[in-house]
Amino acid sequence: MRFTSESTADGVTERRFTLDGVPGVLWLPAGSPTGSPADVAATPTGRPLVLLGHGGGQHKLAPGLVARAGRCATRYGFAVAAIDAPGHGERPRTAQDERFATEIGELLATGRPVSADVARHTAALAEQAVPEWQAVIDALRRLDAVGPDGPVGFWGLSLGTVIGVPLAAADPRITAGVFGLAGHDSLTEAARRVTVPVEFLVQWDDELVPREAALALFDAFPSGEKTLHANPGGHLELPDFEVTASELFLARHL
Amino acid sequence: MRFTSESTADGVTERRFTLDGVPGVLWLPAGSPTGSPADVAATPTGRPLVLLGHGGGQHKLAPGLVARAGRCATRYGFAVAAIDAPGHGERPRTAQDERFATEIGELLATGRPVSADVARHTAALAEQAVPEWQAVIDALRRLDAVGPDGPVGFWGLSLGTVIGVPLAAADPRITAGVFGLAGHDSLTEAARRVTVPVEFLVQWDDELVPREAALALFDAFPSGEKTLHANPGGHLELPDFEVTASELFLARHL
Repeated sequence: MRFTSESTADGVTERRFTLDGVPGVLWLPAGSPTGSPADVAATPTGRPLVLLGHGGGQHKLAPGLVARAGRCATRYGFAVAAIDAPGHGERPRTAQDERFATEIGELLATGRPVSADVARHTAALAEQAVPEWQAVIDALRRLDAVGPDGPVGFWGLSLGTVIGVPLAAADPRITAGVFGLAGHDSLTEAARRVTVPVEFLVQWDDELVPREAALALFDAFPSGEKTLHANPGGHLELPDFEVTASELFLARHL
Repeated sequence: MRFTSESTADGVTERRFTLDGVPGVLWLPAGSPTGSPADVAATPTGRPLVLLGHGGGQHKLAPGLVARAGRCATRYGFAVAAIDAPGHGERPRTAQDERFATEIGELLATGRPVSADVARHTAALAEQAVPEWQAVIDALRRLDAVGPDGPVGFWGLSLGTVIGVPLAAADPRITAGVFGLAGHDSLTEAARRVTVPVEFLVQWDDELVPREAALALFDAFPSGEKTLHANPGGHLELPDFEVTASELFLARHL
């Protein structure tokens, strides 16, 4: 993990990094990145780490992610990390990535659900992204400011869920997840292996995700503690209060 | 409205009353029931009033209701009221009420959904309870400690929803509702007339309420702001954090 820049504002230190060609960003409460013994002592089991997965067409520094990272660092003292998903942000795009971006826009504009093609493409992105996230967790936990043993939460909707659910299924270090705005047969098998607490967000009128498909994905989690929040509106109309609630969910579980 | 007793503990004053033979209870932050001008001036548009509807087989002083009333009064400064539903608490029971109580117990024990008989019976209770609640709102708003123009929230699950939904449909003074643990065709028509913000609680494994019936009732509310929270577990296993969240919902909207 190579850190390429560092800046501090509003109580949050942002450190950009690359790891094996994957560009990412780490946010920490200002003052903590030095990893001084006092700082680590304040979180003896390791600082909770929140991984933010962005949506399709977005990237690691999308405004919503940056705002969420700032709140998680300043309100709860979490370390927060985001990386660009394959084909997103600063990463190279294939012709297929370009087609995917166009198709998502068309589906949203015309109110049609995710096609089998899109589901296949995002599943392929997830297959690549899961080991990338795992390498990021490895590297971040070697930092004094994070520590080796803290809880890890994943927050990601839409494409963030397509990646986050198989990540949570594969990696027992993930101890809580916020997922949603997704639902497809291709996710069911991974969801059946996610046993940690889950908060699952559904938009009742999601153009991309049929209601039954979203409910079926929620149903598939065997987690004893899972909670579904549904609100009216389309894929891009998640109410702000749900974002706040989901941060409180992570604060409760990390 | 005739007040029959008054006591104060833990910052809450509880005043029991009867109104046209219906026994009820009013909780207020301690110190406010005098209705002194200073107190009323502190809530110039009227003190928010929360109506608590109890579940089937419960009553106005069920422990969950009393705890909720105390939190609403001390944390948010609300006035809170509960009345015994027809055939419940201190009210006379008919033979049919007794059969209903027995049948609910049997349905829960054997994991069967609400029968057409039970739905008919609770709908009849609601028909009687709606004007009773409206008379209570009239009377409480004549008290200085409540005032004539404040917002009114309704909190009621299960039988509380069977009564609360038609009440909210009939009475424009209700400005927000917490409903749930219910869902039946007989409620749909009333739900279609509820346009205020609604928080709707679903138990994913509710023995009495098929999942589709609960989702259909949520779907029926035309409210622009409605939010569904679903959690694993049976009819009687609502998580405590949902009760807290529902009180915050009322605090946001009243």
